[in-house]
Amino acid sequence: MKVVELAAPGFAGIRFADRPSALLGGHEVRIAMRAAALNYRDLAIAKGNYPVRRPVIPCSDGVGIVVETSTKATRVAVGDRVCPLFFPRWLAGAFDPAEFTRDLGGAIDGVLAQEVVMSEQSVVKVPPHLTDAQAAALPCAALTAWSALTSHVSIRPGQKVLIEGTGGVSLFALQFALLMGAEVLVTSSSAAKLAKARAMGAHHVLNYKDVPAWGVAAKEMLGGGADVIVDVGGAATFSEAIQALAPNGSISLVGVLSGAEAKLPVPMFMTRAMHAHGIAVGSREGFLAMNRAIALHKVVPVIDRVFPFADTPAAYAYAAAEHFGKVVIEIGK
Amino acid sequence: MKVVELAAPGFAGIRFADRPSALLGGHEVRIAMRAAALNYRDLAIAKGNYPVRRPVIPCSDGVGIVVETSTKATRVAVGDRVCPLFFPRWLAGAFDPAEFTRDLGGAIDGVLAQEVVMSEQSVVKVPPHLTDAQAAALPCAALTAWSALTSHVSIRPGQKVLIEGTGGVSLFALQFALLMGAEVLVTSSSAAKLAKARAMGAHHVLNYKDVPAWGVAAKEMLGGGADVIVDVGGAATFSEAIQALAPNGSISLVGVLSGAEAKLPVPMFMTRAMHAHGIAVGSREGFLAMNRAIALHKVVPVIDRVFPFADTPAAYAYAAAEHFGKVVIEIGK
Amino acid sequence: MKVVELAAPGFAGIRFADRPSALLGGHEVRIAMRAAALNYRDLAIAKGNYPVRRPVIPCSDGVGIVVETSTKATRVAVGDRVCPLFFPRWLAGAFDPAEFTRDLGGAIDGVLAQEVVMSEQSVVKVPPHLTDAQAAALPCAALTAWSALTSHVSIRPGQKVLIEGTGGVSLFALQFALLMGAEVLVTSSSAAKLAKARAMGAHHVLNYKDVPAWGVAAKEMLGGGADVIVDVGGAATFSEAIQALAPNGSISLVGVLSGAEAKLPVPMFMTRAMHAHGIAVGSREGFLAMNRAIALHKVVPVIDRVFPFADTPAAYAYAAAEHFGKVVIEIGK
Amino acid sequence: MKVVELAAPGFAGIRFADRPSALLGGHEVRIAMRAAALNYRDLAIAKGNYPVRRPVIPCSDGVGIVVETSTKATRVAVGDRVCPLFFPRWLAGAFDPAEFTRDLGGAIDGVLAQEVVMSEQSVVKVPPHLTDAQAAALPCAALTAWSALTSHVSIRPGQKVLIEGTGGVSLFALQFALLMGAEVLVTSSSAAKLAKARAMGAHHVLNYKDVPAWGVAAKEMLGGGADVIVDVGGAATFSEAIQALAPNGSISLVGVLSGAEAKLPVPMFMTRAMHAHGIAVGSREGFLAMNRAIALHKVVPVIDRVFPFADTPAAYAYAAAEHFGKVVIEIGK
Repeated sequence: MKVVELAAPGFAGIRFADRPSALLGGHEVRIAMRAAALNYRDLAIAKGNYPVRRPVIPCSDGVGIVVETSTKATRVAVGDRVCPLFFPRWLAGAFDPAEFTRDLGGAIDGVLAQEVVMSEQSVVKVPPHLTDAQAAALPCAALTAWSALTSHVSIRPGQKVLIEGTGGVSLFALQFALLMGAEVLVTSSSAAKLAKARAMGAHHVLNYKDVPAWGVAAKEMLGGGADVIVDVGGAATFSEAIQALAPNGSISLVGVLSGAEAKLPVPMFMTRAMHAHGIAVGSREGFLAMNRAIALHKVVPVIDRVFPFADTPAAYAYAAAEHFGKVVIEIGK
Repeated sequence: MKVVELAAPGFAGIRFADRPSALLGGHEVRIAMRAAALNYRDLAIAKGNYPVRRPVIPCSDGVGIVVETSTKATRVAVGDRVCPLFFPRWLAGAFDPAEFTRDLGGAIDGVLAQEVVMSEQSVVKVPPHLTDAQAAALPCAALTAWSALTSHVSIRPGQKVLIEGTGGVSLFALQFALLMGAEVLVTSSSAAKLAKARAMGAHHVLNYKDVPAWGVAAKEMLGGGADVIVDVGGAATFSEAIQALAPNGSISLVGVLSGAEAKLPVPMFMTRAMHAHGIAVGSREGFLAMNRAIALHKVVPVIDRVFPFADTPAAYAYAAAEHFGKVVIEIGK
Repeated sequence: MKVVELAAPGFAGIRFADRPSALLGGHEVRIAMRAAALNYRDLAIAKGNYPVRRPVIPCSDGVGIVVETSTKATRVAVGDRVCPLFFPRWLAGAFDPAEFTRDLGGAIDGVLAQEVVMSEQSVVKVPPHLTDAQAAALPCAALTAWSALTSHVSIRPGQKVLIEGTGGVSLFALQFALLMGAEVLVTSSSAAKLAKARAMGAHHVLNYKDVPAWGVAAKEMLGGGADVIVDVGGAATFSEAIQALAPNGSISLVGVLSGAEAKLPVPMFMTRAMHAHGIAVGSREGFLAMNRAIALHKVVPVIDRVFPFADTPAAYAYAAAEHFGKVVIEIGK
Repeated sequence: MKVVELAAPGFAGIRFADRPSALLGGHEVRIAMRAAALNYRDLAIAKGNYPVRRPVIPCSDGVGIVVETSTKATRVAVGDRVCPLFFPRWLAGAFDPAEFTRDLGGAIDGVLAQEVVMSEQSVVKVPPHLTDAQAAALPCAALTAWSALTSHVSIRPGQKVLIEGTGGVSLFALQFALLMGAEVLVTSSSAAKLAKARAMGAHHVLNYKDVPAWGVAAKEMLGGGADVIVDVGGAATFSEAIQALAPNGSISLVGVLSGAEAKLPVPMFMTRAMHAHGIAVGSREGFLAMNRAIALHKVVPVIDRVFPFADTPAAYAYAAAEHFGKVVIEIGK
């Protein structure tokens, strides 16, 4: 079978290779992959900013069709369209950091391959209304957004949610927060992207290029601050996010786009009874709950552009530049 | 000031009376009432089915304008449109059954009067988009529905909610569950009411006159059962509700329309890890959270008919018969 | 290997048999069983009161030594002393009633055998200070008690816990509630057993033979009622338990000793904001948390009597009569 | 009545004064103060490090006897021994930062006075086994510790708690964590204080003078890290605390002894699914729950030294130097 491998750091290290098909062990299933979606993490891994075993097959996010099951498998059947889990063994409950010894497309081979073999426990069926390109983005991008809004906070209709940026996680967070009945503010440095966010339903938008101290501005726009903030930025954004947070509010930390070390103003954090939560993608139980929401509301993930498998390097390059929505690679086409 | 009093059990005991205006104590405010909304409880009290001090001014649910404040009051100002709390001292936290020694229109005088004097702590401002008739129903009917869906359960988009009936609490529950992104099933014995529920957004409707064992039927319609059920019926409905409940699901008990003693099938309750929660209206904190949802989404309470103050006995009689939505009495008109 | 089988309903149907050793599949481990502990459920199954496949190897609760592991197993090693899980696939998260198609000693073969083969995912290591007889009781009896006190309630020091009876689950609940700093009341019909419960630390004891309407009495003894009640009785006890429950309190339903259909007084349940929770043993995540508590506090399960394997029928007969603490069967002796 | 006032920044600004007794308004009660306990905050206020209105009566923590009640008061009676609340209006529910416009001994006059007048809603009765000196420390020091361990975390027996230091909050946290059945580690720079902490029941102690990078050391001592950390230090301690925290663990932020701006390592926080919670003392509901724990377990607060009212300046000076346990001022003696 044909796979993509990261042979060396840098996009130049992306290459195609042939690997033998794996045999199925007990409870394992073979998936003919249909599409994979790129995340910021995939770009960082390809650039060599994360330590990975090389050559690794990249990408955590993808969808495919079950084409073979071992005799013991009962959860899925041939013909099912499924996504592999980002953390194959995190089914439910508290997170075990040992999962980072088996995260897809990082510690172990990922989904940018014609075939993937997984335990039947490590896949979930996807909502039927989604195209392959749309379904491909669920395992990390969508689930991280879902977890940020559900795993340690309970959002009630009428509560206020601030979402930083318009990347993959952020757009899913916008869609999910609206389903929850929240009042949503989105930040970006691009007026065009903010216009799109507003068209998707955001109640408020804020261009942080125009308002560098956007925390106080966001608090005012939200009439007292956000009850929940999805922080994708880390170092630079956290300080502003704290300013935008309402008393008793929570920041869900899901990314480090602007740097790894954030400053926490302890007196403000204490006297306003604030909360911060580290979000590590999510469990299978969360994935299944999310899929029920996506299916009921026919949520359509935002896709920017779809590339054929052969153009994988171009997809990486495109994803590294400006875009709005997921960059997807179709496999087997 | 003119008031309505319940002088004796039975609707014939409803009479008009004059009472002197009360003086304001510290932190108290005077409210010129604009409207009151009838609940099932108000009918039961008028009929004499609840023990109350007589003559009591009836009704818990109403709205009015603050016309005078004591010098110490700071939370509200003259001109504010407010609802008194059903339980005047339940501001937040766990419920204290001692509140039942001071529930409005039961243990103490209610709101069917030209003036009500309350502590400034015991009122909340209402969303501006509501008419007086619409705002009148918030304190008990709407808040009970909100509490049933928020105080001991956390509903995620895609979860399934079953609502029994189309009474005041049930219609608010329908509206709120939809705001939460839930898949909602409504039961009723009236095809016409079910049609209206569907028009309001219910995904499924079930006529329990046609399907007396509606629990199993509802479970099937919901593809595995309801995650949350709002049980208004008590004795007769609880047994069916349990059948309709999904594993790990919760029943919020808010009423006893069909009788007071329900049968709990312990083995099913245990082996499906079910939950039951008693709901006692709600606190001021819940009221404020609900109002944010109502204001953001411009929720419009369903009003069946509005009566002038002078026709209060007719309003009671009308409310005791078939209707869909709240029966409201406008005061001062 | 030698096993016990239930060939026919009734204790007379308990027999010894030889079965071939099973081969290990991927991720499976072989356990040389050391001891099994009897539960009320095991007696009911042997009597024929639960539908089971016959001949089934009985008993859910046991402990043994890992003597062989498949090449893929990494969670446990040869020499580890482990308990199999009551529900082999319930690792964490919400309960799936499909587990009842694979509960040990019921739907599938149990642990009263010289060897048990399980997935490495389906066992947990036991605290070293426990003897085999003591460790044998953890999977169902202890874990049910732990779940009743932790999975849907959070007990703070100073809260009040009422425990019905002195059976296996109840004595563990007593020990755990004391570790949590609770004020504990135990009921029984035996003065001798109550004396033992008091010696174990119970703050209050109540003989329900002397006080048939024990609910109100217990409420008084606890100065306002219990915050959490562990209800093992079902039909007959639930009505009294509700009387003993404090406002905002919770009843954890764990048994049906006195019958299956309880009466729920809806008005009291609502006006006191009460909660009921069905408890289905517990997950592996709960088991591991429980073991940390047992290990730290060197909790010693109460053992009434230990029988050799050959005397299994006598152990059943003994367990069906009066006792205080677990009845255990040592295997391989 | 005689009071202490802070007339100017610095301990030299502590002076005695006479003030007229206040009249009682509706629902108010007069308390003859018996003792006040000093907190780090009181020292900072006296030094001028917090902005306060001058001359303010200092101290938030104290206890006294109700000597007069207004006619409307029903919650307390003459003769009751009570503590005023740190935040007089925070009865339950979410925290409102507006409370900081009425925190005792800061924004409004405190308890270092012969008489205090409060709303009957703003006091709680204290456990009878406590001396006045012991009871004086409950409102801020004890309640902050209680909230840090209960309001946003649920500690199960067997979980691991790390407590920084041996100040007032920390010693209460040690006592409460032990009641909860936790395994507790205490840090300090003093071997003598650590010996005392161990004598009080701490399972582990760690001298951070000997081990400056104490976070990793504590994690090892606790076999995987702390599930809950009570962080009193802020800037300097937070970085170490994060190192000591177990996956899924929570840090409760209660102080800024070592500085106000902490560094948050976002990748570690995310990949270990960590949580941080700002703690603002606590509500009356929490206070009442805490008192039940204190009363049941006859918890005895640690008192270092008691000064007579006339020696208030000496008490401040003593509290500013080394000590172990509360420094208390007896009033009216």
